[in-house]
Amino acid sequence: MPRSRPVNDRSPLIPRLDTACAERVGRYLDTLTKPPGSLGRLESLAVDLAAMTGEDFPRVSPPAAVVFAADHGVAEEGVSAFPQSVTAQMVANFVAGGAAINVFARRIHARLEVVDVGVASELTDPGIVHDKVRPGTGNLAREDAMSHDEAQAAMATGQRAAERAARAGCRCLIVGEMGIANTTASTAMLAALTGEPVAELVGQGTGVAGDALAHKRAVIEAAIASRGADPKDPLDVLTRLGGLEIAAMVGAYLGAAARRLPILVDGFIATVAALTACRLEPSLRPYLIFGHRSHEQGHGRALAALDADPLLDFSLRLGEGSGAALAFPLLEAATAMLSEMATFADAGVANREAR
Amino acid sequence: MPRSRPVNDRSPLIPRLDTACAERVGRYLDTLTKPPGSLGRLESLAVDLAAMTGEDFPRVSPPAAVVFAADHGVAEEGVSAFPQSVTAQMVANFVAGGAAINVFARRIHARLEVVDVGVASELTDPGIVHDKVRPGTGNLAREDAMSHDEAQAAMATGQRAAERAARAGCRCLIVGEMGIANTTASTAMLAALTGEPVAELVGQGTGVAGDALAHKRAVIEAAIASRGADPKDPLDVLTRLGGLEIAAMVGAYLGAAARRLPILVDGFIATVAALTACRLEPSLRPYLIFGHRSHEQGHGRALAALDADPLLDFSLRLGEGSGAALAFPLLEAATAMLSEMATFADAGVANREAR
Repeated sequence: MPRSRPVNDRSPLIPRLDTACAERVGRYLDTLTKPPGSLGRLESLAVDLAAMTGEDFPRVSPPAAVVFAADHGVAEEGVSAFPQSVTAQMVANFVAGGAAINVFARRIHARLEVVDVGVASELTDPGIVHDKVRPGTGNLAREDAMSHDEAQAAMATGQRAAERAARAGCRCLIVGEMGIANTTASTAMLAALTGEPVAELVGQGTGVAGDALAHKRAVIEAAIASRGADPKDPLDVLTRLGGLEIAAMVGAYLGAAARRLPILVDGFIATVAALTACRLEPSLRPYLIFGHRSHEQGHGRALAALDADPLLDFSLRLGEGSGAALAFPLLEAATAMLSEMATFADAGVANREAR
Repeated sequence: MPRSRPVNDRSPLIPRLDTACAERVGRYLDTLTKPPGSLGRLESLAVDLAAMTGEDFPRVSPPAAVVFAADHGVAEEGVSAFPQSVTAQMVANFVAGGAAINVFARRIHARLEVVDVGVASELTDPGIVHDKVRPGTGNLAREDAMSHDEAQAAMATGQRAAERAARAGCRCLIVGEMGIANTTASTAMLAALTGEPVAELVGQGTGVAGDALAHKRAVIEAAIASRGADPKDPLDVLTRLGGLEIAAMVGAYLGAAARRLPILVDGFIATVAALTACRLEPSLRPYLIFGHRSHEQGHGRALAALDADPLLDFSLRLGEGSGAALAFPLLEAATAMLSEMATFADAGVANREAR
């Protein structure tokens, strides 16, 4: 499949960046009352947001935060510090407003949506978006995580969530996940996609160490060998080794970029999903801003594979979109700098040329 | 003067950290619905804020942002890319609300105060706090920047500003500065305090490069040699090589810590002031949180001298308190995590022990 084509017939086309707008904004920044370039990274963020949105005064508020929840068959191999039931319990916590992503989403006035794309149990909590593809993946240590059609269906779930966010007037997309054992699936995907040894990618996830970490590594290595995913085919990697929430994240990224919505990427799992999505559709990459460098071992490799330099380095390893939500005020500050600062001329301040 | 004593009779005593409170908060963090430690730096910030304030649920809002403005006699040596008149023009811009610190202070709902502690011209803009010690420093290339009494008076100006912020109900202090040529004074102070070569500390400030940068370096080296400040006496370094706004920052830090107000430190000049204040009063150090690592050459050395690890690395080099204001939402998120997240017990989520 040539890379300039959409992933499938239902996949959206991603517009090119508006480089003319980016150049205008770059010039305008030098008229604001500050030494040229002195707001550093904030200035490059403003230019990037202009290029993505095509707006001279881009906005990122209100943001959308979408958390995709799903279970993983591989949890039965004992790869996580927490029991599988925690996925559904945390969904209830999201709905009740008590999780970290709730706290951080409130701070940034985000439209928060919790989407069940594959939790193993039947969820009845009010306020959940029900878009389940299947109740948890297959155990990738023994079988493919899902079928090709199920991966596509989960991507479509994600794409629909991005479209709901855009229709609701959101100007930036944060995507999070909840799924016990999903660092196992993500690490397997990352190893398959990059060819790097599992030993250098596997991390503690929610808190496995010592023998349990060695076991997690062995499960991942065996799964990669048994599944035989084609590293050149990101959809095959996603299908055999991935997760339903990971597939949904891929679809959400592609759907958001198709609508020129800047995407603020969260941690390890979100970045593996981003790498998968960029392998499917390289024109996605410039719409991605990376929120933070997490504590999870493999995250640095995933970021390097995307040539990404995250905004924060806070040793987070929670997921849920929490790190991206934490970083969001920096994007908002970049847009406020553009729209609210006075120019040298307006403020009657002598520019350096006046000397 | 022994270090356990206040700097002078008017200097406030700084309370010890509340380590019992910090320990309680550390234990409480592990009951919240997240893997223990998974919010990384945010968790250590919460514990630090508890230790500073003595509160189990510390708050940092509303913050105060105080910008001290003053001129520097050394500007006449041509060490800055901007003319000295820009100090007063930027004060007018602060009062009109068009500068970067205005934009970022509004985002965080800060109480913003602009204090004239030593601008060379007579300022009449309404809304300025007039607490001028003298109209600009002496040219440190030829004479001491100020007298010992003037340095103390400028510190008292800063202390009063911190006290106003505390009385107004502010829960965190951000201190910024405006003063054309103040990276020259700060670099001279840093070289004197640390004994490191000027060549490794001097940076572009608002934008000098090439021959102009070499000239700036030569001016600083000559000034250090001529002034002969005693590196063991931070007040002597401040007096001979400093600035009125830098002295005010020193006083503001000491005044805030005396009232258990967490301090969010801005960039290069703010950090040199922090180093000076900590040399005067080492018990200040634990009340300082460092907002960002700036692009200015010497900032890394100043941070290292304080064993400081800033929250952001954004290549900023503007001053005004802008980088600290940008970092503030991270502190606020740490306090919201503590006060708003559900515990495992409350949310009915199985903790890892339940497995």
